[in-house]
Amino acid sequence: MMNKVCFGVDIGGTAIKMGVFSLDGELLSKWEFPTRRENKDLYLQDIANEIKQKSTELKIDENDIIGVGVGIPGPVKEDGSVLELANLGGGNFNIEQELSKLTGLKVKAGNDANMAALGELWQGSGKGYRHLVFVTLGTGVGGGIVLNGNMLAGTNGAAGEIGHIYVNEEETDTCGCGKKGCLEQYASATGIVRIAKRLLQESQEESTLRTIENITAKDIFDAAKAGDVIAYATVEQACKYLGIAMAHVGQIIDPQAFVIGGGVSKAGTIITDLVQKYYEMNVMESLKKREFKLAILGNDAGIYGGARLILA
Amino acid sequence: MMNKVCFGVDIGGTAIKMGVFSLDGELLSKWEFPTRRENKDLYLQDIANEIKQKSTELKIDENDIIGVGVGIPGPVKEDGSVLELANLGGGNFNIEQELSKLTGLKVKAGNDANMAALGELWQGSGKGYRHLVFVTLGTGVGGGIVLNGNMLAGTNGAAGEIGHIYVNEEETDTCGCGKKGCLEQYASATGIVRIAKRLLQESQEESTLRTIENITAKDIFDAAKAGDVIAYATVEQACKYLGIAMAHVGQIIDPQAFVIGGGVSKAGTIITDLVQKYYEMNVMESLKKREFKLAILGNDAGIYGGARLILA
Repeated sequence: MMNKVCFGVDIGGTAIKMGVFSLDGELLSKWEFPTRRENKDLYLQDIANEIKQKSTELKIDENDIIGVGVGIPGPVKEDGSVLELANLGGGNFNIEQELSKLTGLKVKAGNDANMAALGELWQGSGKGYRHLVFVTLGTGVGGGIVLNGNMLAGTNGAAGEIGHIYVNEEETDTCGCGKKGCLEQYASATGIVRIAKRLLQESQEESTLRTIENITAKDIFDAAKAGDVIAYATVEQACKYLGIAMAHVGQIIDPQAFVIGGGVSKAGTIITDLVQKYYEMNVMESLKKREFKLAILGNDAGIYGGARLILA
Repeated sequence: MMNKVCFGVDIGGTAIKMGVFSLDGELLSKWEFPTRRENKDLYLQDIANEIKQKSTELKIDENDIIGVGVGIPGPVKEDGSVLELANLGGGNFNIEQELSKLTGLKVKAGNDANMAALGELWQGSGKGYRHLVFVTLGTGVGGGIVLNGNMLAGTNGAAGEIGHIYVNEEETDTCGCGKKGCLEQYASATGIVRIAKRLLQESQEESTLRTIENITAKDIFDAAKAGDVIAYATVEQACKYLGIAMAHVGQIIDPQAFVIGGGVSKAGTIITDLVQKYYEMNVMESLKKREFKLAILGNDAGIYGGARLILA
């Protein structure tokens, strides 16, 4: 193979996803394997081995590899050092230096949500934008910010931690982070289920949700679309808090567009429409009329972003 | 004069402040004159004339002028165009192009609060930082954000519009921007007086404030420091909302430090201490321990920032 390539790596708590990309953004090959999370030396060595093996398989000359971009679930400082990795165990090492030593390649790293943001900006629904906010709604709520085409890491790699924006003064339950009233308590898959259970308890209203034993976020969106009042109120409450949090983001960084991804976003435009409604209610006039889009790269956003990071 | 210099200009609704700076940040001369706000051609011509006159007076060779950095009270886009100027009248022109034509010099422009942020970063209490948030508490609440040493303008020049971050769901009064519950309704000089009047009405508590006919923000801070319960509750409420808004900023951009300026900030560390308290209550663990400082450049922050902008 004559053309230059780069690798994108997305380290997750369960699996590591990898992709080889042409420099103009074509995904040439992707694959994944379980994360050996016992310690970082194991999974970093696995990544190095996979790069070598895939290069042999695809007949990629080592000199044609521009580098490796890696997303990791935790804060990554600008110098490539990672702090504590709550979802992966361990932490406190320089992933760029260590993986570079193992591969002999240039390595750049960032937080996984920031990588997904970069990926959507490069080849996803954020294509053509320079200032973008990406929100991922899954088990938790993550976020990534791209300004002038570059991801924003912040002082301690914590920029874009949208899930822990404080949105409700009256919350009595405690968030995983120890605070009360974080966005994640409403707009994550578990948060949405929590809202529904509360509303079902507080109200006498009939609801198809009452017949379901283990309610999921998908059940709630399906019922909301079918006209279930409590389910719709649940979705509206989740989107209200997400819209308010996006309004805060808007007032602070004035982005061009918001892209919403993650498993929950599969519910579709019911989310973007409601979030945009509450966003517009809570920003100044000049910040209205921003784009709200659904992510399109799905689970591949992270590897796209990794590749884009090494090209920046 | 042999050394290179640059000009910093701060266009206000009442007066235009100007300064000549050495490239290492020494303020060589500063002066001000009334803003002829009837139309932009008048005040831009005034600025051009002042540059010429001051250059003659200080024997500055035109070739030694690096350029002119200008702050203006309104949104400025990255290309130097200004949108509507609420506090100045007019708008919708490219200030960089027009002033450059009049002076024959390189001109760069930004929002006045962003300029003050840059000024404090360069030669004020933000010296040494790269990621900084500046808040100015005056008649209104303004803000400016510096990331990686550069001011953040955003898509429409509205980045850092901290005064209109939504902080109180229960507010019934309407903010100047048309929304309800904006930070400016609590943390501006007028906002603080508004809180005090509310608390005085709602409570039977004795207060020295009851003896003052036209209460000012300064009266309230003085009384709070002297132990007046209602005055202290007022200050605490203003700082609570400011702390919450700063927590939002923290979660979103992860800055190194917050600098608080503007007339209200003359009340001193009572503000920074309380704001920091509520900030820390509302951010994730890794975002705590940030610096909260009072601005030190006062009304000169804008001209410093203008000069810094042209050097960037």
